[in-house]
Amino acid sequence: MKITGIIAEYNPFHNGHAYQIAKIKEETDSDYVIVAMSGDFVQRGEPAITDKYERARMALSCGADLVLELPALFACASAEYFARAGVALFTRMGCIDYLCFGAENADLSQLNKIAGILADEPRSYQDALNRYLKEGKNFPAARILALKSYLSAESSDAALQTEQLTSLLSTPNNILGIEYLKALKTCGSQITPYPILREGAGYHDTDILLKNASASAIRQTLKQAGSSGSSSGSAPDFASFSAAMPQEAFQIFSEYLASSTYLEADDFSGILNYLLLFYPAEALACFADCNIEIANRLKKNRSAFSSFTQFAALNQSRDITYARMSRIFTHILLHMTAEDYKQAKQLGYVPYLRPLGFKKSSSDVLGEIKKHTDIPLIGKLANARQTLSDDAFWLLEKDIFAADLYEQVLAQKNRTIPRNEYTREIVLL
Amino acid sequence: MKITGIIAEYNPFHNGHAYQIAKIKEETDSDYVIVAMSGDFVQRGEPAITDKYERARMALSCGADLVLELPALFACASAEYFARAGVALFTRMGCIDYLCFGAENADLSQLNKIAGILADEPRSYQDALNRYLKEGKNFPAARILALKSYLSAESSDAALQTEQLTSLLSTPNNILGIEYLKALKTCGSQITPYPILREGAGYHDTDILLKNASASAIRQTLKQAGSSGSSSGSAPDFASFSAAMPQEAFQIFSEYLASSTYLEADDFSGILNYLLLFYPAEALACFADCNIEIANRLKKNRSAFSSFTQFAALNQSRDITYARMSRIFTHILLHMTAEDYKQAKQLGYVPYLRPLGFKKSSSDVLGEIKKHTDIPLIGKLANARQTLSDDAFWLLEKDIFAADLYEQVLAQKNRTIPRNEYTREIVLL
Repeated sequence: MKITGIIAEYNPFHNGHAYQIAKIKEETDSDYVIVAMSGDFVQRGEPAITDKYERARMALSCGADLVLELPALFACASAEYFARAGVALFTRMGCIDYLCFGAENADLSQLNKIAGILADEPRSYQDALNRYLKEGKNFPAARILALKSYLSAESSDAALQTEQLTSLLSTPNNILGIEYLKALKTCGSQITPYPILREGAGYHDTDILLKNASASAIRQTLKQAGSSGSSSGSAPDFASFSAAMPQEAFQIFSEYLASSTYLEADDFSGILNYLLLFYPAEALACFADCNIEIANRLKKNRSAFSSFTQFAALNQSRDITYARMSRIFTHILLHMTAEDYKQAKQLGYVPYLRPLGFKKSSSDVLGEIKKHTDIPLIGKLANARQTLSDDAFWLLEKDIFAADLYEQVLAQKNRTIPRNEYTREIVLL
Repeated sequence: MKITGIIAEYNPFHNGHAYQIAKIKEETDSDYVIVAMSGDFVQRGEPAITDKYERARMALSCGADLVLELPALFACASAEYFARAGVALFTRMGCIDYLCFGAENADLSQLNKIAGILADEPRSYQDALNRYLKEGKNFPAARILALKSYLSAESSDAALQTEQLTSLLSTPNNILGIEYLKALKTCGSQITPYPILREGAGYHDTDILLKNASASAIRQTLKQAGSSGSSSGSAPDFASFSAAMPQEAFQIFSEYLASSTYLEADDFSGILNYLLLFYPAEALACFADCNIEIANRLKKNRSAFSSFTQFAALNQSRDITYARMSRIFTHILLHMTAEDYKQAKQLGYVPYLRPLGFKKSSSDVLGEIKKHTDIPLIGKLANARQTLSDDAFWLLEKDIFAADLYEQVLAQKNRTIPRNEYTREIVLL
């Protein structure tokens, strides 16, 4: 039995995602594709466009066999933690053959070379990185410069001392890909990395562009449709992004949007504003990705708060990206501290497997996992307190809190009754 | 120099309040009237209709000479704590002659008799009270029944064994009055209690009724005016309550309402809902007026939450009044625990005097207070950290938090920039 793992957000699921699943099955002859998917909050530090069950349903309807939830703590973390947790999850399953990921550049040797440097962190690379950070560069920019400087000192590798390095490190897919490779190295995983080149990238024909729209382009289209309506709550123009999604996923997505509004970061503005007032700077500094300088700045600027996204943009700076600021806000909302990350790391990142959904026809893959894994597979959430260690349950509670908060704010916006995470059904297709 | 103290909310200031100030000055020949007023959250567990500075301005423009803030911890507490703190504040000033309060029944001897029983809590009264509480009566109801049962056993006092007792204990003014008398006894205060009969009570002529409308009737009128408008944010019909307020107070109130919206408890719904999700039942149980049974009920009912007031009404019960539930919610929002009350009690309830405003022409009363008081008078808030003990500053920080939260939610609603409590000016008239 050959099994491939994919770490994803599917926010929402689109043609590129379907292509990746089809391609990996075809190229590696995989019997099953298992997805480790973020829950209701995503890596950018925002609520997902639909809840995790809907996103799991889209994935299952378009080729995935099983969708597991990536713990919330890591789903809205920096790329390094996000990738590390995803790789840990697949490695601990004990039966995954390939880790498939999208890349703008599928040259595995180049990606691996960079991952090797980042995993080993040779002294001269570290020195260069610290120098650029001290100069006030943000982390992604400083890392590119430090890699360049390290590689240019290695005369043997002129091939990477070019513009190519910048482009290699400037796309989210490649950055994540390199983090996956780094994580596989670091935890000595037996899983084979399998990058797949994004289809259609480079083409400029409008139709192709639409067919290959990214998840963020789809979200953007949706938001523009929502805000351009003359009255509040007008139905978004579904047709404008139907071409970008597989038919089955589009069906699920449009039905969801017809029956429910979708959440945006700004729906959490009031709560965030309260918490920024409530916590003293010293407490804010303890949340993951924050520090005392940022905390003091947030306190100082508080009177200029008008919304989550406006305040994230206001407080970003040369050395703090918007995404980091947005993640800090989400860590505050979800109460995720730097200490929590340390603790979860000690638990091996992912101390449980939690299915969000699976295809009935693929149910024997669950048996295969149970045979090989060293961590519990959560069936009914209500039984988790009995079957998990206290430590593991502590991490699971963060997933439950994130899901309940998402539901609560969504229900307030929809004027419906929030569903309780404990009583929601796993998606069976 | 004769000085009278009044404990008040002025939410908003109306004819009855003006009458009380004029009457006490006239009857006692007082030189100055000092008001201990709640800040931005009031005893019912709700935000005040206008912020505390506006309410202080109304009072000063209608006869008060100095307005001090009652610490937020006690301003939104049960009648007992509210009264106790107000009496402590005036007693610690060391120069107050009279404590004036409104009453439906100005027979001091009757009020005093009841206050005496409540202060001493004789065994048979206690037994009766506990019996009624165990039967599931709420506290106010159980107290009336216990007093009746105690007094009926005292055959000498047939006068109070009537309907009169119920009516005596059924109006908020009398209940507070009795609490003031009880507090004066308990803390051995030298201040003379001075009840003033509410003017106009009992008259049914419409004009008189309007002229004697209560603060809650004015708030009700305002809310009805607000919700009956065809479009959102239509200006309330000021004329409908102008007759109930002195000209000067009406002027200030209507100018405020023309430039700003007003806050209601439901403006805090989103934050409250978050906090009810965030805190485990054990933590909710620690907030003042709450307990583990109530906390469990709040957690259990959480999915039926749609707003602050709806959820307070939903969770009230035979033994828990709406006002108590609303106060619990405000304690959660303002993070006021049962432990905080204990700690503040040990500080002598009110460990500082904080003027919200005063009449320039009455400024020598400040000198008189400074001469007699044993607690610091806060001039500039920015200097308070230096002049107050750590304990006292801890209590003051709760006032600052309450004010900043009020401002923040108001500013979000008004789409303006919130004012910072540290930079607001004391009202000088």
